Amino acid sequence: MREIGIDELDDIARGAGILGTGGGGDPYIGKLLAREAIRAHGPVTLVGIDEVPADATVVPVSGMGAPTVLLEKLPAGTEELTALRALEAVLGRRATHIVPIEVGGVNSMIPIAAAARAGLPVVDGDAMGRAFPEAQMVLPTLAGIPNTPMALADDKGNTLVVDAVSNRWAERIARAACTEMGCQVSCADTVLRGDQLRDGLVPATLTLAGELGRAVREARLAHADPVAAALKLLGGVHLLTGKVVDVERRTTGGFARGRATLEGPGGPLELSFQNEHLLAVRDGSVVATTPDLICVLDTDTGEPVTTESMRYGLRVSVVAAPCDPRWTTPAGLDLAGPRYFGYDCDHVPLTP
Amino acid sequence: MREIGIDELDDIARGAGILGTGGGGDPYIGKLLAREAIRAHGPVTLVGIDEVPADATVVPVSGMGAPTVLLEKLPAGTEELTALRALEAVLGRRATHIVPIEVGGVNSMIPIAAAARAGLPVVDGDAMGRAFPEAQMVLPTLAGIPNTPMALADDKGNTLVVDAVSNRWAERIARAACTEMGCQVSCADTVLRGDQLRDGLVPATLTLAGELGRAVREARLAHADPVAAALKLLGGVHLLTGKVVDVERRTTGGFARGRATLEGPGGPLELSFQNEHLLAVRDGSVVATTPDLICVLDTDTGEPVTTESMRYGLRVSVVAAPCDPRWTTPAGLDLAGPRYFGYDCDHVPLTP
Repeated sequence: MREIGIDELDDIARGAGILGTGGGGDPYIGKLLAREAIRAHGPVTLVGIDEVPADATVVPVSGMGAPTVLLEKLPAGTEELTALRALEAVLGRRATHIVPIEVGGVNSMIPIAAAARAGLPVVDGDAMGRAFPEAQMVLPTLAGIPNTPMALADDKGNTLVVDAVSNRWAERIARAACTEMGCQVSCADTVLRGDQLRDGLVPATLTLAGELGRAVREARLAHADPVAAALKLLGGVHLLTGKVVDVERRTTGGFARGRATLEGPGGPLELSFQNEHLLAVRDGSVVATTPDLICVLDTDTGEPVTTESMRYGLRVSVVAAPCDPRWTTPAGLDLAGPRYFGYDCDHVPLTP
Repeated sequence: MREIGIDELDDIARGAGILGTGGGGDPYIGKLLAREAIRAHGPVTLVGIDEVPADATVVPVSGMGAPTVLLEKLPAGTEELTALRALEAVLGRRATHIVPIEVGGVNSMIPIAAAARAGLPVVDGDAMGRAFPEAQMVLPTLAGIPNTPMALADDKGNTLVVDAVSNRWAERIARAACTEMGCQVSCADTVLRGDQLRDGLVPATLTLAGELGRAVREARLAHADPVAAALKLLGGVHLLTGKVVDVERRTTGGFARGRATLEGPGGPLELSFQNEHLLAVRDGSVVATTPDLICVLDTDTGEPVTTESMRYGLRVSVVAAPCDPRWTTPAGLDLAGPRYFGYDCDHVPLTP
């Protein structure tokens, strides 16, 4: 158990941005939200999953929508509490802890902001160990834990509570409503009891995000290679250091979808994304796929590059890192493997 | 106070189909649902709005979606109770009465079926005095009564509860979810206290529907003109007796939209619809518009013709009847006048 103060937010947001594989929203916006909440309400307590009582009510809060919209429509920072309160009303009990549903620029920070406002501790972990675009793509789905009741709140004051027959149906209904509500809503869903955290979370990912962010910052200060520092902590594979030469994107069905072509010494690399980077192809061969992490970093600064900020001329490095092993089981690949996203290929293990 | 038995359902469904101005779904399907429920649970008590206690909790239940889908996907008949129970859970109290949100083939019968299953009385009235395609187009909106909390349930077992900042926002969010849920859901919304019924309802429309249906049936049996019999009760204007010569339709955004051209002695008449018939134009001149009732009847039988059953060659009569006077106030026309639906014309009073 320890406190997260304003000074740490930069590192956590940077590291979560890297683990968020291009999705989860702009870390800068997330950081502003969390900073404002901590300034107003004081630091947030971070607890390890072993420190959470078995009967605790642990609630993931997050933003849902297209990150491209988030850039133009800043959240007020209070919608998460509205969603949380709507969820608590149907649960008939109050949340005891907040937890991120995913690590990613905004969705690692929103729970910290919400926890500060609600006066609750944050659990050190998340339900993906990365970021994914759809709500059912969480370890609780693999563990048979429903993601409903799911509460959504928008910036206008509209709320809704979904109760679905499957986690995939909850995603479909919530996504349709989210799109109508302006492609950016706050969610509280996938409630976990304290004794479900081992099955439902990847542990210690906020701490990992903080370490990753600090390693990048310190390497930069020491005029060392920030990408190498990140790669070391990620235990991943270096795929390319080069330049973005083409980006094709569209915001459809509530998602930011597209494709980027990068050129570097090893030849061109093509990245496909749907909020997150999901597929890396070189010379027609798949070199990395979801659910493994495909992370794009600014080569000079080591800062994470989100899918919506990919643009021509950007000098970037691409690294791939292994996902939580539960994601590469047959059930995990059914839920978040490349075929689910419509890519005609199997998951290939990363080759160093 | 009196009982509605199985024998009356035919007349009510027929009359409500006429008052439903082509929308509200196929009367035949609605009748089957109500008959099955009354067979299983016994007759339903119909109470006048003056017989309802001031502190009663009166809940409109209905089907939302595209009537074209209803024809292919029959409701199980139990989703309304699921929606009702979800609404009661957030209200924190049980419904004491059921009421139709609109008169229309299916939506006059669904409340009767739900009331039979729930063991509750039905209030004789509805929130439109006709049928309209969108959820905010109800007299409670004009009276400042919110249509949320609004509960939706689908045939798969998914439910959601919307709480919106305006009745229009509730419609937008519910419509988006409804479309994703298969374009056919059951709703419980626009809760009225007993003392709000005068403002929120057009009184005695189930009785009117029954009388209208009976008049048509009796005229038919007496080899008299069933259309003339309906016209007399509606107090309306005869627009055309002729033939459908063209229909153009599409199901978009959760609605059945389109246009039909009819030919008769007085020249061609063009009807535009969005679930309901909304506009009648002759020689470029508007002869009847929403919110007045534009009713299409089979010329031989007097049976109502729904917008989704309009087809080439059908021999029909078109009559127009004045709506409840609250609909032709400026606020009423803003809510459901021709311009709201994108027609570039003002409401024209009916000229006999």
